[in-house]
Amino acid sequence: MARGKTFIISGPSGVGKSTVLKNLFEGREDLYFSISATTREPREGETDGVHYHFISVERFQELIEADAFLEYAEYVGNFYGTPKKYVDKAMDDGKDVILDIEVQGALQVSNKRPDTIRIFIAPPSWDELERRLRCRGTDSEEKIQKRLVRAKSELRTADVYDYFVINDTVDRAVREINAIMLAEHCKPAERMKILSE
Amino acid sequence: MARGKTFIISGPSGVGKSTVLKNLFEGREDLYFSISATTREPREGETDGVHYHFISVERFQELIEADAFLEYAEYVGNFYGTPKKYVDKAMDDGKDVILDIEVQGALQVSNKRPDTIRIFIAPPSWDELERRLRCRGTDSEEKIQKRLVRAKSELRTADVYDYFVINDTVDRAVREINAIMLAEHCKPAERMKILSE
Repeated sequence: MARGKTFIISGPSGVGKSTVLKNLFEGREDLYFSISATTREPREGETDGVHYHFISVERFQELIEADAFLEYAEYVGNFYGTPKKYVDKAMDDGKDVILDIEVQGALQVSNKRPDTIRIFIAPPSWDELERRLRCRGTDSEEKIQKRLVRAKSELRTADVYDYFVINDTVDRAVREINAIMLAEHCKPAERMKILSE
Repeated sequence: MARGKTFIISGPSGVGKSTVLKNLFEGREDLYFSISATTREPREGETDGVHYHFISVERFQELIEADAFLEYAEYVGNFYGTPKKYVDKAMDDGKDVILDIEVQGALQVSNKRPDTIRIFIAPPSWDELERRLRCRGTDSEEKIQKRLVRAKSELRTADVYDYFVINDTVDRAVREINAIMLAEHCKPAERMKILSE
């Protein structure tokens, strides 16, 4: 059995990443979605080990010192991180792992694990991203403009990514991600090993 | 419209490359199969421009001097080559191009066009390749052993290839080639251009 690989999936707010990921995971027992650890309190309806691994600040600090995270960050007073443990277990079991993280986290993971594959989900156009942000109806006009500026700046720093998936339709985006995952398993390092056995 | 890309497909004798290519091309108007030029005489049933571009030795030499081939070779007294012209036209039309060439030709093309993607079709195992060569019933035992030695030596020099497709079933091989082609179109160079338009 070939070992699983880790795929980072990033994308700007409003691009439709959650829907793409939901569709990608449908009926896929061979994929593992990495669950973050966090120090924030569970919200109503959130379950430990399902939505997050809820841990104390002390425990989080211990894990940082033990180099147990692939990446971590502080966000409005709480820590969030990707524990290595579950990622490694899934890959050992032959599962591909999806990390739903943003550009800064992707850079941290890339430094620790250069063999991680980085996929950026981009909008078909900036106009379309603006339209989608507006359609959600959750943000003020000011916030929408801020999100657009941030998305454009993210894309400029996104040349570290290996692939760009254009989310014009969810089906197309999922098809492209699946193609990327399969193609990555056709790389020589993995295949030569099979043939030399 | 994105420009097409060129994909080299190589593989040892007996691996089943022709069947894979036949299935790959079924119903695909967006793919172009590169037709070689040759100085050998047409055989019964062969049509100029379909099976080969049949040209004279003088013309072939002119084309070599004009750097009009992506690769060429001499084989039992005849020349065979891949004309740049048709490949470039197809890519300009947005079609992906398949070059069915062997390892030496792949190296020549790679030197001229480093952006060409190289796919090697490998057998699931050496035992299976031997079984397939035997099943064809066309070769003597001595020739089968020679082909196996050559296949193993080709694979050793094949680390220049970008992808290895294992032909255990034709469907799987075709699915992997399609995934590779789609994934290659998700590379940043092409996609960033779309988003900066």
